Amino acid sequence: MSTTIDFNSDMGESYGLFRYGEDEKVLPYVTSINLACGFHAGDPVVMNKTVHLAKELGVKVGAHPGFPDIMGFGRRYMQITPKEMYAYVLYQIGALYGFLRTADMAPSHVKLHGALYMMALKDPKLSEALCEAVYQFDPSLPIYTLAGSETAKAAEKIGISVITEFFADRPYTEEGVKMFGWTKEEIGSPEDIADRVLEMVETGSITGLGGIKVPVKAQTVCVHSDTPDSPEIVKTIRQTLEAKGVRFKAPERETILKGEF
Amino acid sequence: MSTTIDFNSDMGESYGLFRYGEDEKVLPYVTSINLACGFHAGDPVVMNKTVHLAKELGVKVGAHPGFPDIMGFGRRYMQITPKEMYAYVLYQIGALYGFLRTADMAPSHVKLHGALYMMALKDPKLSEALCEAVYQFDPSLPIYTLAGSETAKAAEKIGISVITEFFADRPYTEEGVKMFGWTKEEIGSPEDIADRVLEMVETGSITGLGGIKVPVKAQTVCVHSDTPDSPEIVKTIRQTLEAKGVRFKAPERETILKGEF
Amino acid sequence: MSTTIDFNSDMGESYGLFRYGEDEKVLPYVTSINLACGFHAGDPVVMNKTVHLAKELGVKVGAHPGFPDIMGFGRRYMQITPKEMYAYVLYQIGALYGFLRTADMAPSHVKLHGALYMMALKDPKLSEALCEAVYQFDPSLPIYTLAGSETAKAAEKIGISVITEFFADRPYTEEGVKMFGWTKEEIGSPEDIADRVLEMVETGSITGLGGIKVPVKAQTVCVHSDTPDSPEIVKTIRQTLEAKGVRFKAPERETILKGEF
Amino acid sequence: MSTTIDFNSDMGESYGLFRYGEDEKVLPYVTSINLACGFHAGDPVVMNKTVHLAKELGVKVGAHPGFPDIMGFGRRYMQITPKEMYAYVLYQIGALYGFLRTADMAPSHVKLHGALYMMALKDPKLSEALCEAVYQFDPSLPIYTLAGSETAKAAEKIGISVITEFFADRPYTEEGVKMFGWTKEEIGSPEDIADRVLEMVETGSITGLGGIKVPVKAQTVCVHSDTPDSPEIVKTIRQTLEAKGVRFKAPERETILKGEF
Repeated sequence: MSTTIDFNSDMGESYGLFRYGEDEKVLPYVTSINLACGFHAGDPVVMNKTVHLAKELGVKVGAHPGFPDIMGFGRRYMQITPKEMYAYVLYQIGALYGFLRTADMAPSHVKLHGALYMMALKDPKLSEALCEAVYQFDPSLPIYTLAGSETAKAAEKIGISVITEFFADRPYTEEGVKMFGWTKEEIGSPEDIADRVLEMVETGSITGLGGIKVPVKAQTVCVHSDTPDSPEIVKTIRQTLEAKGVRFKAPERETILKGEF
Repeated sequence: MSTTIDFNSDMGESYGLFRYGEDEKVLPYVTSINLACGFHAGDPVVMNKTVHLAKELGVKVGAHPGFPDIMGFGRRYMQITPKEMYAYVLYQIGALYGFLRTADMAPSHVKLHGALYMMALKDPKLSEALCEAVYQFDPSLPIYTLAGSETAKAAEKIGISVITEFFADRPYTEEGVKMFGWTKEEIGSPEDIADRVLEMVETGSITGLGGIKVPVKAQTVCVHSDTPDSPEIVKTIRQTLEAKGVRFKAPERETILKGEF
Repeated sequence: MSTTIDFNSDMGESYGLFRYGEDEKVLPYVTSINLACGFHAGDPVVMNKTVHLAKELGVKVGAHPGFPDIMGFGRRYMQITPKEMYAYVLYQIGALYGFLRTADMAPSHVKLHGALYMMALKDPKLSEALCEAVYQFDPSLPIYTLAGSETAKAAEKIGISVITEFFADRPYTEEGVKMFGWTKEEIGSPEDIADRVLEMVETGSITGLGGIKVPVKAQTVCVHSDTPDSPEIVKTIRQTLEAKGVRFKAPERETILKGEF
Repeated sequence: MSTTIDFNSDMGESYGLFRYGEDEKVLPYVTSINLACGFHAGDPVVMNKTVHLAKELGVKVGAHPGFPDIMGFGRRYMQITPKEMYAYVLYQIGALYGFLRTADMAPSHVKLHGALYMMALKDPKLSEALCEAVYQFDPSLPIYTLAGSETAKAAEKIGISVITEFFADRPYTEEGVKMFGWTKEEIGSPEDIADRVLEMVETGSITGLGGIKVPVKAQTVCVHSDTPDSPEIVKTIRQTLEAKGVRFKAPERETILKGEF
């Protein structure tokens, strides 16, 4: 059993006057964040502020590229070409890099947002374009994605690392994670969620909807900062697992094992 | 008389299906370009393509940050705060850097676009926010602006270099350059324009509207790629000045003289 | 003393997943709303929902055109031309009309939003373009603005009605209303605010910052749905004034007195 | 054989400084236009200008709602809900109506743009949401779409008229019209195109790719104003068919036959 795990959350999704998510309350409990880069949410002022907030707390910052769709929050599938995927990802990693550089930080990883993440999971060409962009920017930059996905396969092919991910605040079925259209009952209480994470760490599988066992291999656990009660959820996960001896730590680039998914 | 000068042009201002400017025809004659970064024009696909086009021709690429206003092409004044200026500039430099890095290029300079350029000329606080962003990203990155402007003063104060600029395709009055609302008659033929550039290089002043002499100190000459007949204009400038022994060359970072404006 | 007054609030300023303002809690206490039309805030789904919510409560709905700037929430001045003002206003009134028509409602008025409202107050040409657009759409459609402003003058000149406005949740100085940069202390408690409205209705002037008396002539009172404690403020105003015999009623188009400002 | 036919073209697709399409050259030859409403292209100033241009030439104007995606020109599929379809369509019809009203014109029809048009063809729920929006705005407003499509079926069900459409400047295969990814060779010369329209009018079918006969039932013929040589194409179609006695005329609302597809 791996006793060290990363804990990530989507952040910086406010936009202008529009406040979104519980960034300040969630940040102290996670080890890495996926920072919105202005396409699906986030704006330059929010990005700048969030980078410095993360730095203060010693939290790593990765890019969180999404579809160019503020109105839909990047949660609507859009038919983009691999060429567009490549350029959108590079643009957003670069934009984040502008702020990280002023904070003497390097991007820690890349994780796609919302519908773009889901679309890439099943699309080899979009995943290759994504990984090519990441590779071109920095071959040592890992991608967060699901084990076994087309994104994971493309990363291996192109030669970048994968950090496999478990969505603690989403229900799982036999088909895998149910990202959209879930209910609060399906995900349960903060304690239920923490138990599921512990189960995954200890056994390599979790209890999904209907009590089924779903194998989950993950090096990072995700809780979204806009999930209801996210501050309570992340705190409970952190405390529950630390009480069992699990250590929380963002991946170091050099310790990432390639091809392990 | 300085016999070496930089020759710059705004580029990459197409957007999606919308074509804009004469990039391909102007590029071979200039030594540096100001690449739109997606706020006032340009999109990630266009940026990627233009970076590689410039690389092939040995042309340097700088960031061209503008107001977030595609509909107004960044030519409408917007009331932004210094904090927004800082963040908008960093975001756009970073976004460009994403593409440059894949082409093994470094950004050569930063030049604001349109109304943002004009607004900063007279606004010390916005200029300081701009220069602070540039300094934080890379203290060796120079700014293109008008000699004597607030932008030039802020750069000197903060410690970044200035490349002073002459707008060859805009008429000058006693108040300085007339950026908007000019007519074709006021700027004259390609030959008239080339003569003006030569006059500036040889004498340190140019003939403005009404035949007045306007002192112009400039290390770079600008022609916009959307000025009517821009390909003919840049070709004529290049040929006219080269015939007189003037050399065209983008500034090397180390040879930039600080405080010389 | 006029014993009948309109009570208006800006609404429908949510955008996609971003929730904004206390629409549901404020709506029951006002008599007319200014509905965001998608330029500075609001989206088509929000507009549709808000129109039907207002209809259920018998609240009138006017258009609330703003600058095309979601990121700045229409609170940043932008340099637009009268031609753009004309077209932006017509577009936004029309867009709102699409939804009103399905609810068998007519637009009750037009009120500019944020920086566009403030800019028009002092700009005769922009105000004329605004009023021309309103007149062309429907000459019986009144405008909410400040008494004595350029907007009021342009309306009179072009022949549309004005409903003069008092901002209950903003402090007044000798120069007039302080729209941006105010503090909670400056506006006071819900009771303070209600007292100010009562003072205005009874005496034609209000107590501004520093205890000065500021003459205010107004046929409608505005409280913004995003002002902190807006639900408590609107409730207190309504109850305080109704207890004194003031009736709340949106203006009927035919009873509007022209030229009375 | 029907000797009267409508001739439509997409227009008003310029945006800010970005010019697009050959509106002025195509307008004199068509009888109705589909005017972009600011979501996929077009802006308020362009809409206003185009409405008045059409009025001068006696050309009818319909709404051309598209996806909210200027960067993709509305040609990328987006996953929207029926609720969003309903609201987006109403918003865009309304916005156009704002300008038409000032020109004493009524909208003549509604035709979806690009990927939204294509998506609705096969999606009963999106088509019903579209038709419901049109019906709610004005039950006498017809929709342009393909005969036999889900859009046509939804229109019949909800009780609005359909004008069946033939895309003269797109190749047809056994599966129907090939909207994207066609080549110039596949559509042929202006004369080839005009012959195809004549064939359709005379025989009720056209010659598609590979010489196959494709049955096409259409009351309106479409040529896009951004198809290469569009001015020559529309002129040739008009002259060729008029020489054969075909009359060009936009549909009158009362003469539209319901259920005829």
